[in-house]
Formats: sequence, structure tokens, C-alpha cells
Amino acid sequence: MLKTNLTQISKPIKSELIRFNEVFKDSLKSKVGLVDLVTKYILKQKGKKVRPLLVLLSAKVAGGINDRSYRGAILVELLHTATLVHDDVVDSAEKRRGMPSINAVWKNKVAVLMGDYLLSRGLLIAVEGKDFDFLKIVTDTVKRMSEGELLQIKKTKKLDIDEKTYFKIISDKTASLLSTCCEIGALSASANSEYQNAMHNFGEYLGIAFQIRDDILDYVGSSKIIGKPLGGDIKEKKITLPLIYALNSATEKEASNIIKLIKKNKKRENISEILTFVKKFNGIEYANSVALEYSYKAKQMLEIFPTSESKLALEALVDFVIERKN
Amino acid sequence: MLKTNLTQISKPIKSELIRFNEVFKDSLKSKVGLVDLVTKYILKQKGKKVRPLLVLLSAKVAGGINDRSYRGAILVELLHTATLVHDDVVDSAEKRRGMPSINAVWKNKVAVLMGDYLLSRGLLIAVEGKDFDFLKIVTDTVKRMSEGELLQIKKTKKLDIDEKTYFKIISDKTASLLSTCCEIGALSASANSEYQNAMHNFGEYLGIAFQIRDDILDYVGSSKIIGKPLGGDIKEKKITLPLIYALNSATEKEASNIIKLIKKNKKRENISEILTFVKKFNGIEYANSVALEYSYKAKQMLEIFPTSESKLALEALVDFVIERKN
Repeated sequence: MLKTNLTQISKPIKSELIRFNEVFKDSLKSKVGLVDLVTKYILKQKGKKVRPLLVLLSAKVAGGINDRSYRGAILVELLHTATLVHDDVVDSAEKRRGMPSINAVWKNKVAVLMGDYLLSRGLLIAVEGKDFDFLKIVTDTVKRMSEGELLQIKKTKKLDIDEKTYFKIISDKTASLLSTCCEIGALSASANSEYQNAMHNFGEYLGIAFQIRDDILDYVGSSKIIGKPLGGDIKEKKITLPLIYALNSATEKEASNIIKLIKKNKKRENISEILTFVKKFNGIEYANSVALEYSYKAKQMLEIFPTSESKLALEALVDFVIERKN
Repeated sequence: MLKTNLTQISKPIKSELIRFNEVFKDSLKSKVGLVDLVTKYILKQKGKKVRPLLVLLSAKVAGGINDRSYRGAILVELLHTATLVHDDVVDSAEKRRGMPSINAVWKNKVAVLMGDYLLSRGLLIAVEGKDFDFLKIVTDTVKRMSEGELLQIKKTKKLDIDEKTYFKIISDKTASLLSTCCEIGALSASANSEYQNAMHNFGEYLGIAFQIRDDILDYVGSSKIIGKPLGGDIKEKKITLPLIYALNSATEKEASNIIKLIKKNKKRENISEILTFVKKFNGIEYANSVALEYSYKAKQMLEIFPTSESKLALEALVDFVIERKN
């Protein structure tokens, strides 16, 4: 398969993405100088805009892009940006997209308030557009995202996580938003509830495949490419699918030894011992096969839509998510 | 005048407040253990519930309390609680309502996420109840509150604040939510737009009077009663109405000397010199007279409503706000 990338994937909606960037920029304007300054800085950080891409492609596949599709795209991008700004506060992250983070430049206070501002700005656009169907989906998603993160924090503390809990966490914290993007796109373009459901599920499966792949990259990625050292999740005591599978495959004694190592996780040797353990029990192969399974499920959801360039682009996006190395 | 207090004020809706506390408790239940644990802790902190009181009294005055009034009361209390949880993160506050703050017990990460959770939980209740009119008002309020705080941060850094900017800040960060409470109460009870506007303005004026009084207490309050030392705002370089008036009344030289003192604000003597300066130029009397003016404006807004116990309670609340010593 040809190497795909986001620029190629977004080709069918190239002009629509340019228009999106303009309306997104307009939506961020504020009369309060500091707000304007911070939002201009956010625009300079140049996010990948995967979520607006999903909204617009889904809309095009389901019937066609219209004003409501643009409002939906702005809503999810504002919501996503708000989440990132808050995430950087809670993780005390110094960098975001290669630039100093908002909290690094303006301190936590401004960052927490800006996150609240961006979220309410997005919701207000939906309210003003009378997109009440979007609001229902989006507020439920914000709730699920915070619940997913909080569930992960709790499980991280106790180190008792099974496959079922893992799927609940990644579905809530990651897949819910991608699913929302695709559903909002379909909703904006078509009144057909089969289309809406199919796109909802497409986004959910895509999100699960994406997060599993993300978790795998913590074990096998090249630290040069992904820009962070391997084993970061282990250091933070986050137990993800490759490790869960390995722990279930090992003897009880082997598993409890590994859990002990995770608890006293500071040393470099411990991390590499855990990596070796996961590889020995084929944790990575297993996780890859599950991610692949979800990628097929995702593509299956697209079957009811007529063939089009945009549909091919969504399929290519699924492949991209599965094959990415960073 | 008799000394009023919140218990007396809430008498006309005593049974309704009991019902509110029950539904509020139910609304906080979550299947995620950690969320449930934190919300139970929040319930133990026992807030004064001034905002639900305003919603319910306004509803009763405007026609009568119904299910929608309760949903509105839950929405504003969840929103207010979310703001407090985020505020404690940004201020690194250790205490809230006499108990350790959420960030002190569970760290910043949980506190930021819980704030997002509480906000989305509130919005979701409004969405599910199809209270789209509430949503418009509330999302606009969240935006105004964060803009107001951000404007204050910017002005605090530069120390260039005039009366107009001061009123913009307190209207956005404080009065907007109280105004929202009263408007939502009226909306739930009556389709009469004059009632809704009157209650909106009542809340706005009440909020402005409340915040001016709050700012005055930083200059004259008894530290034993208000539980924090005098001059806290000056230490944080927050210039409020008493000081703005004094600065405008003084000569340019006197004013610039005071500004210099505020900049190097660490010393105890500086704070007391600034307090003396404000008193010398009658900053406190002036601010009190402005607060009183807004309290009259607020009461005037109630004139179109028929006399009732609840209307008297709202008037008593205005007096309480103006006369409070903490």
C-alpha cells in the first residue's frame, strides 16, 4: 500500500479545509486582549486538525458539506483544543506541538480559564446555530472524556486493570470524541439515522484502533520519531493492552514480579525488563491484531455509503492510523 | 432593620430547598468510583447554595416553581461548583468551605477533570430536559466569567484600571452568574419577557452590589470574621473600587507613589499605608454609596411583581448583601 499521510487524505476536501481555517480563526476573536493574544498563539501552534477533517469528510460521504458541518467542525476543534490546554496544566507539560505550552507561557491560571473559555465558546456557537442535536452529543462526550481520564487515574493508582476496563477507558477518553466528529458530520449532511449510526460506529472503532496503536508505540516506537522516550506509560504506571495481555499470559508469579517492578518504576533497567516481558509474551503482536480487527470493523461501517473520493479518504485514514510509526 | 440571614431568607421555599438538595445529590451520582467519591466529598463541603436559592425564589416570584426550575437550579449549582473547583487549582488554594480543597486531596489533575465533569454534567441535564433557552444563557455566562477573570489578570499585571474596566470585570466574573440564576428562574416560571428581563437585571444589579461589597470588605472587614487578612486584594495587585476612587481623587504624584507601593507590595507597612490612603480619600464611603445605589436599582426591578413572601425574601437578600460583614 502507498504511504498515506494526512495531506493526501484531506485532498477531497482541500478547499473546504481552507474555508474551515478561516471560520475557525474568526470564531476565536475576542474583545478581551489577553484572550485574543492566547488564541492567536494557539493558531500558531498549527494542530493537525484531524477532528475537523473527520467532521467534513463524514459530512461529504453522508450527503454533502454545509454551514452546519462547518459549525460542527469548529465545535469539535474548540472542544479538543480546550481539552489539550487543560491536559497540559494537569501534566505540567512544558511543550505542545513544538512550542511552549499555554501554561508554560501564561501560567496555570490563564490556561485553566482559557480551557473553560474555549469550551464555552464552542458550545455557544452550537447554541447560536440552534444545533441542539450537536450539543447533546458533545456535552455527553465531555462528560465521558473526563470520566474516562478519572477512571484511568484510579486504575493507575491501584494497578488492577483488565481488558474490559482498558476498553472502557480508551472508548471514553479517546474514541468518544472521534465518534462524535463522525456522527456530527453525518447529522449535518443527512437525516438518515442509519447513516448517523454507521458514522458514529465508524468513529468509535477508528478511535479504539488509534488508541491501541498509540499505546503500542509506547513499546515499539522510535524515540527519535515520536519525540519521547519509550516506556513513558509504564513510568506513569499506565497499564495498556500489550502489558495486560502479557500479564494474563504469564504465570501468576511472573505477573506479580512485573507488577512489583512497575510499582518501583524509577530505574531504567526496570523499564527495559518490562519491555522484554511484554515482547516475550507477544503482547505487541496481540495488541496489533486487536487494532487491526477494529480497523476492519471501522471500514465495514462505511459499506452503506456510496463510493466516493471522500469515502476512500476515510478508508485511507483508517490505514494511516494502523500503520503510523509516530 | 432586623439582622437578616440566609436561613430566614430561604423560609418561603424551605420545602423546595429540601427537594432541591435531594435531586442535586442524585444528579451527582456516577458509575465511575472516583467521580462518585469526589462528588460525595463536595456534598459534604455544604455550600451556601445561594444560586439555587436565587433560581427558586425568582421562579416563585415570577409564577411558581416547577420541574424546570429545579433543573435550572441544579445546572447553576453544578456550574458554580465547577468554577470553584477550577479556581482552587489556579489559586493553589488548600481550603474550601473549611475543608481541604479537591486539589489538596486528589491533586490538580483530578480537580481540573472534575471541574470539566461537573460543567458537562450540568449542561447535559439541560440538554436532556430540552432547556435550550437555559443553555444559551449559561454557555454565554461561562464565556463571560472566564473572559472577566482573564481581563482582571491582564489589568492586574499592568495596574492600569479605571472605573469602567472595573465594572466590566465584576459584571462578567460575578454578576453574570447571579443574573443567569434569576433569569433562569423567571424563564422556568413564566413566558412573560418583561418578567424575564426584570429578573435578569435584578440579578445583575444584585451581583454588582455583592462584588463591590466583597471588595470593600477587603479594606474594612474584620479578619477574624472573614477568615482572611485585610489587604489580600492589594497583595495580589487587584485594584478595586475603593482604591480606584482614591487614586482618582489624589494628586498625580500621590497616586503614582501608591502605584509604586502596590508594585513592591510584599511589606506589611506598605499594605497599611495603602489602606490609610484609601480611607483618607473616602474610597470606602464612595464604594459603599455605589453598592447602595445598585441595591436600590435591584429592588426597583422587583416592582413589577406582585407582593409575596418570596418577593420580600429577594428584597431581604439585597439588604443582606449590602449589610454583610463577611
